[in-house]
Amino acid sequence: MTLNPQRTIDELKELRELTGNEDGAQRVAFTPRWTQARVFLKKRFEGLPVEMHDDAAGNFWATLRGESDRELLIGGHIDSVPNGGWLDGCLNTLAGVEVLRRIAAQYEGKPPVTVRVVDWADEEGARFGKSLFGSAACSGNLDMEEARGLVDRDGIKLPDALQEVGIEFEKVKDCGQELKNAAAYLELHIEQGPVLLDKNLALGAVLGTFGVERHAITFHGQAAHSGSTPMDRRKDAFLAAARMSPEIYEIAKRSGMGVCTIGSCTTKPGIVTSVVAECRITLDQRHLDADKLATMHAEAQAASERFAKEAGCTVSWERLWHIPPAPFDPDLVNFCDEAILETCGVSHRLPSGPLHDAAEMAMAGIPTVMMFTQSLHGISHNKIEDTKEEHLRQSVEALDRLAEKTMAWIKAKS
Amino acid sequence: MTLNPQRTIDELKELRELTGNEDGAQRVAFTPRWTQARVFLKKRFEGLPVEMHDDAAGNFWATLRGESDRELLIGGHIDSVPNGGWLDGCLNTLAGVEVLRRIAAQYEGKPPVTVRVVDWADEEGARFGKSLFGSAACSGNLDMEEARGLVDRDGIKLPDALQEVGIEFEKVKDCGQELKNAAAYLELHIEQGPVLLDKNLALGAVLGTFGVERHAITFHGQAAHSGSTPMDRRKDAFLAAARMSPEIYEIAKRSGMGVCTIGSCTTKPGIVTSVVAECRITLDQRHLDADKLATMHAEAQAASERFAKEAGCTVSWERLWHIPPAPFDPDLVNFCDEAILETCGVSHRLPSGPLHDAAEMAMAGIPTVMMFTQSLHGISHNKIEDTKEEHLRQSVEALDRLAEKTMAWIKAKS
Repeated sequence: MTLNPQRTIDELKELRELTGNEDGAQRVAFTPRWTQARVFLKKRFEGLPVEMHDDAAGNFWATLRGESDRELLIGGHIDSVPNGGWLDGCLNTLAGVEVLRRIAAQYEGKPPVTVRVVDWADEEGARFGKSLFGSAACSGNLDMEEARGLVDRDGIKLPDALQEVGIEFEKVKDCGQELKNAAAYLELHIEQGPVLLDKNLALGAVLGTFGVERHAITFHGQAAHSGSTPMDRRKDAFLAAARMSPEIYEIAKRSGMGVCTIGSCTTKPGIVTSVVAECRITLDQRHLDADKLATMHAEAQAASERFAKEAGCTVSWERLWHIPPAPFDPDLVNFCDEAILETCGVSHRLPSGPLHDAAEMAMAGIPTVMMFTQSLHGISHNKIEDTKEEHLRQSVEALDRLAEKTMAWIKAKS
Repeated sequence: MTLNPQRTIDELKELRELTGNEDGAQRVAFTPRWTQARVFLKKRFEGLPVEMHDDAAGNFWATLRGESDRELLIGGHIDSVPNGGWLDGCLNTLAGVEVLRRIAAQYEGKPPVTVRVVDWADEEGARFGKSLFGSAACSGNLDMEEARGLVDRDGIKLPDALQEVGIEFEKVKDCGQELKNAAAYLELHIEQGPVLLDKNLALGAVLGTFGVERHAITFHGQAAHSGSTPMDRRKDAFLAAARMSPEIYEIAKRSGMGVCTIGSCTTKPGIVTSVVAECRITLDQRHLDADKLATMHAEAQAASERFAKEAGCTVSWERLWHIPPAPFDPDLVNFCDEAILETCGVSHRLPSGPLHDAAEMAMAGIPTVMMFTQSLHGISHNKIEDTKEEHLRQSVEALDRLAEKTMAWIKAKS
């Protein structure tokens, strides 16, 4: 029995039929469609010599015991955003199933190390606005205080919603024990950006997930009549804020591979006949390197103070959110690169802007790597999300090669 | 009998007591407080040899017949915005009264030319959002179609509100006949800006009122994930819009004395994790010279197209409003300058950013000039609006000198 990537594509299509509609994928975590998807996933393991269970946070584990207790984890998430793409998340889990099938067959049910497929619960956070629920519970990073207070649009609290699907909120971190023998974590995912598309590449080895600094910046100037106030007498909060926009492009460029985004701008009083008295912008900065992320943040702060002063304004910053970078394991990144080269003849290393469950595993100290497959249109979280079938086949093949290399690496280390 | 500027200050204070409160002046046009102010004004003329009447648009006229039918008009408005300043508008009318008293006394009731004080109705447009009602009806520039549809916040239409104070809307332009002998128009006003304050000057001769080009500019880019979209792949509508802000300062500087204001900015989707797909800003541009105003507008359009292109965006413009500049009469500007020099020893020429009834008179072809007195804090339309008493006295004296010079000029021409 050999690897059959076409089977993965067929199963992905079957899942799409089962749990999607004309608006896209509808596998929102903890909903009936998601439960249906989970049942579909569990059925894929029938006939294989695996143990299966759901953990305290609702993550699903399929375990193929090996000669060693040391474990290779292959993770993904079958949940989606509402009206999501057909591949985001479930490519990982279904490709993982196929790799497990190949390993089980090749080693006659007893591979050199234990191999597990995990389907994380509520990666998207679509209902409660908090992503990486299951993997953060498992890594121990879940902020219980914050999670306890999360409310969906109907006013239902997260703990109550979990109760309904049989999960006891106060015990979700018990699932951390699942990781006690974890030796490596692999995750295949569509890129959700345009980098591989632009380079016309099928696959890429991911260096890690970006750290994020997210702030609101408010410039304080003075309202003044647009007709009677000479230009040199103005304290124009919009002028100061506007100067930040070209500046963040320079800051990002100097940082190497970082990105900076001003996503919103509001003005007060915001009328056509007045100089802007107050201007609030949001700034999202991301980098794979913690020091460089700190530098980007410091440069933006310094620039904002310079522009405020030049415009006769003051400026205040409010941190909205932050998370450190999660760089992946250098050995595993090399194996990923090799696996892609062997499969496609060409590879590329790139960081991940969006967060993934892999970040939680890396932050928990487990050697981790991700593999990206090209995203047509460069987008995700949308019904038009897609990947060429050729690339999907190559992704399953490369993930399988990566799994084999990683098993040997774990074995050699233990 | 000689000019008594202190009497004007006393009358202004009396009017403040009568029609203002702790929040400022409350003489909103066509309200009981305004009617009270009008009664107060009319009483000032008692004992003077003047004819008085309200015209078809509710403007009040006091006429002192002279040897010639040719008329010198001195205009102002006793109406205010809600919570307005104590001097805005009524300084003009009450100083006009004092000048008329001096002329009536000096020429024993028969000056060389006819002299009239006019109190315009609803200069501020506070209730219906349309300023210069009475003077625009008189000049003929009032857009009847637009005015007919104006509605206040209670849903009452302008024609119905006028009916209640005895004005028949469809006949308001009949008041145009008031101007048939008009030979010159003078208006004293507080500056409402900081120019004289910054120069530590009491008075200034006004060159004219700015023309205005007012537009909404919308940049169209593309929403993209803030983490997964490389900087050089973005179509960032905020970047294009932001570049307009420093640019309009350059455009204003090149224009000489023009002003440009971006008063509001809105972003779509306007969330912290997305590049801005659509950014709308408002641009208000003003200049005294029509050609230079046109140049400023053209330069802003060209810049917006350049910035849009550089950011991978497109741009669209929507005109919100425009009015041509109203330059004042060169002879009268010279007289105004001389009158100020004789009164204060120093003068200054400046344009008016805000509109005034004088603009309607200038556009109607009547030789016109305004005189500005310093505005403490550089602001108006606010209860803290104020002018030093010394400057108020000087303003009445200089207006009187200007009136005398203008009478002689009219006489010489007729």
